[in-house]
Amino acid sequence: DVSSLDSKTSHRTHTFPGLVNVAAFVPNLALPNTRDLFEATKASISAGFTTAVILPCGQGNRIADRDSLEYARANLAGSAHCNFALGITATASNTQALDDEIQAEAKLLFIPFRVAGATLSLSVIAAHFASWSPDKLILTDARGADLASILLLASLHNRSVHVTDVQSDDDLLLISLSKAKQLKVTCDVSVYSLFFTREQYTQNHLLPTSATQKLLWKNLEMIDAFSTGSTPYQLAQDLSRTPSAWSGAEEVLPLLLTAVTEGRMTLDDIRIRLHDNPVQIFGLPDQTHTHVEVIIGRKIPFGKRGTCWSPLEGSSVSGNIHRVVVHGYTSFLDGSLFSAPSGRDISAASVNH
Amino acid sequence: DVSSLDSKTSHRTHTFPGLVNVAAFVPNLALPNTRDLFEATKASISAGFTTAVILPCGQGNRIADRDSLEYARANLAGSAHCNFALGITATASNTQALDDEIQAEAKLLFIPFRVAGATLSLSVIAAHFASWSPDKLILTDARGADLASILLLASLHNRSVHVTDVQSDDDLLLISLSKAKQLKVTCDVSVYSLFFTREQYTQNHLLPTSATQKLLWKNLEMIDAFSTGSTPYQLAQDLSRTPSAWSGAEEVLPLLLTAVTEGRMTLDDIRIRLHDNPVQIFGLPDQTHTHVEVIIGRKIPFGKRGTCWSPLEGSSVSGNIHRVVVHGYTSFLDGSLFSAPSGRDISAASVNH
Ligand SMILES: [Zn+2]
Ligand SMILES: [Zn+2]
Ligand SMILES: [Zn+2]
Ligand SMILES: [Zn+2]
Ligand SMILES: [Zn+2]
Ligand SMILES: [Zn+2]
Ligand SMILES: [Zn+2]
Ligand SMILES: [Zn+2]
Repeated sequence: DVSSLDSKTSHRTHTFPGLVNVAAFVPNLALPNTRDLFEATKASISAGFTTAVILPCGQGNRIADRDSLEYARANLAGSAHCNFALGITATASNTQALDDEIQAEAKLLFIPFRVAGATLSLSVIAAHFASWSPDKLILTDARGADLASILLLASLHNRSVHVTDVQSDDDLLLISLSKAKQLKVTCDVSVYSLFFTREQYTQNHLLPTSATQKLLWKNLEMIDAFSTGSTPYQLAQDLSRTPSAWSGAEEVLPLLLTAVTEGRMTLDDIRIRLHDNPVQIFGLPDQTHTHVEVIIGRKIPFGKRGTCWSPLEGSSVSGNIHRVVVHGYTSFLDGSLFSAPSGRDISAASVNH
Repeated sequence: DVSSLDSKTSHRTHTFPGLVNVAAFVPNLALPNTRDLFEATKASISAGFTTAVILPCGQGNRIADRDSLEYARANLAGSAHCNFALGITATASNTQALDDEIQAEAKLLFIPFRVAGATLSLSVIAAHFASWSPDKLILTDARGADLASILLLASLHNRSVHVTDVQSDDDLLLISLSKAKQLKVTCDVSVYSLFFTREQYTQNHLLPTSATQKLLWKNLEMIDAFSTGSTPYQLAQDLSRTPSAWSGAEEVLPLLLTAVTEGRMTLDDIRIRLHDNPVQIFGLPDQTHTHVEVIIGRKIPFGKRGTCWSPLEGSSVSGNIHRVVVHGYTSFLDGSLFSAPSGRDISAASVNH
């Protein structure tokens, strides 16, 4: 069906492979007996994501040792609606505790700068770089000063780093300079950073200014992936609206597809940044007969299944999910979820594409 | 005479090779018809420095193009009392203007962050890294955020960078991490940072806190060189005392030699950081029959030839310059200057030791 969107005469359908929810933020992921992770996988599948790479750092809790990893796993045992990958959050005290076993079970090491509130000292970060398995990714939300340090360490250790939620053109420049010298660095920009601004939501400091947002769009080529991240959750909270583990997921495709109808990006731009590159960057197992059918070009009110607040409430969008197929079975169709809890824990799997 | 300082029974003499004034700050270096550069070379030789590597950035003026380089040269023509090396200051607009010829004539490219006031954008700095001759040193006074960016660029371009006037243990850590990975990075700490603190001189923000100063001493092994830098000039100015092109030079050896008598460092520590390493780092031609004879262990009032203010005024020191010999001739003896203006411009010379 790759044919005729260009004509823009009417609505079209398009089929993506199963997409990846990059840096899904789950507020209570590492506490015993919460349903947030379960809800996050439901939100993902409802939003066209058949795999979720989950930020191992929630709202005041995080996966940072064996206990918290087990809590998170127990919260999802037999109940995940999509494939999911868990990682470990670097802390000032867990360098030694992250032994071979726990490293083998984790998808990545997350070095937090913004999500976690507190910042690790350079010597702690250097120790993590020295001890975290060279085969496993390091994920970070560093920016500015901290980003330069992280990239320096990545360069010195010649290791893979993915920078999530890049928020400035200067940070994109640092990353692209590193890439130009064959450093194994990739990055994503959160979808909200591309569509909402600090001027619109003055209570929130995570969104870019509209001037910076323009530069992010201008540098789309430098952006390897689109992420969900913690901005949607934080934005709802800053506005004193209801946030949840669903925050931000359902908005991704409607926002991006609307941008396609406006000629601001292509369907390929979406596939590359929500499937091809994430699969590569995170070494994710590909899912056979797993597709997302979308409708583009028909202006409809934004519809959602989540009960949390959305910045798109009351807005029209020009793109929508029609169906999500996982391993040949329809998991989601026209707003209704038929998903079975058959998502697998792919944290330990590492596929070289 | 290497023998008997350890006994500390009385005063001793010791002979150093001709020392290097690293990052000499000259307030009016690139203005037409000023005597500051001339005075800086007189201050240098009187302080035991037979070579001066001059910061190409003064007080509101700088060497940044052919004209300003010619002004500086003209100011020293036939009048330099020690060998001197000039460099070029990177600006937002001179990336293109620094052609092969001017690069060949300069000792180094200085990327300023503090001395110059304004900070260059990352893209400008990246452009300088891409275009400045790979054989020639890059000098910077970057710290923190900016230092990480500079080291990242040094790593990506695999090129030599010397960081002057390091002021924190975190910056030393960044540098030593880079060194550990065979990056061609060296650094110096200004002598004033080792002996004066922000608590002593609350008007000055360039000096370290006493806590940071302790860490600098603790990490002496990581420090390749000692510099003079702009702190002495700035300190005098902040205290509303008289600064000059002499500021800071004459204090270097008395301060360091006093530290030797107190067992805080060795004579070798001084030689390595004021001669061996600077000669190596800046690729300086060695000077034959050029020595500095010092007296150690006799407590005397600090004496100086410069007319500017000194923080050592009224203090006693336990080390002093006795004689400076250049090419076999005595240039300085017991407080009197006999130097001929025979210093050479060694900016273009590059010696691989
Ligand atoms: Zn299509
Ligand atoms: Zn796929
Ligand atoms: Zn299929
Ligand atoms: Zn259909
Ligand atoms: Zn001796
Ligand atoms: Zn020598
Ligand atoms: Zn001799
Ligand atoms: Zn004598």
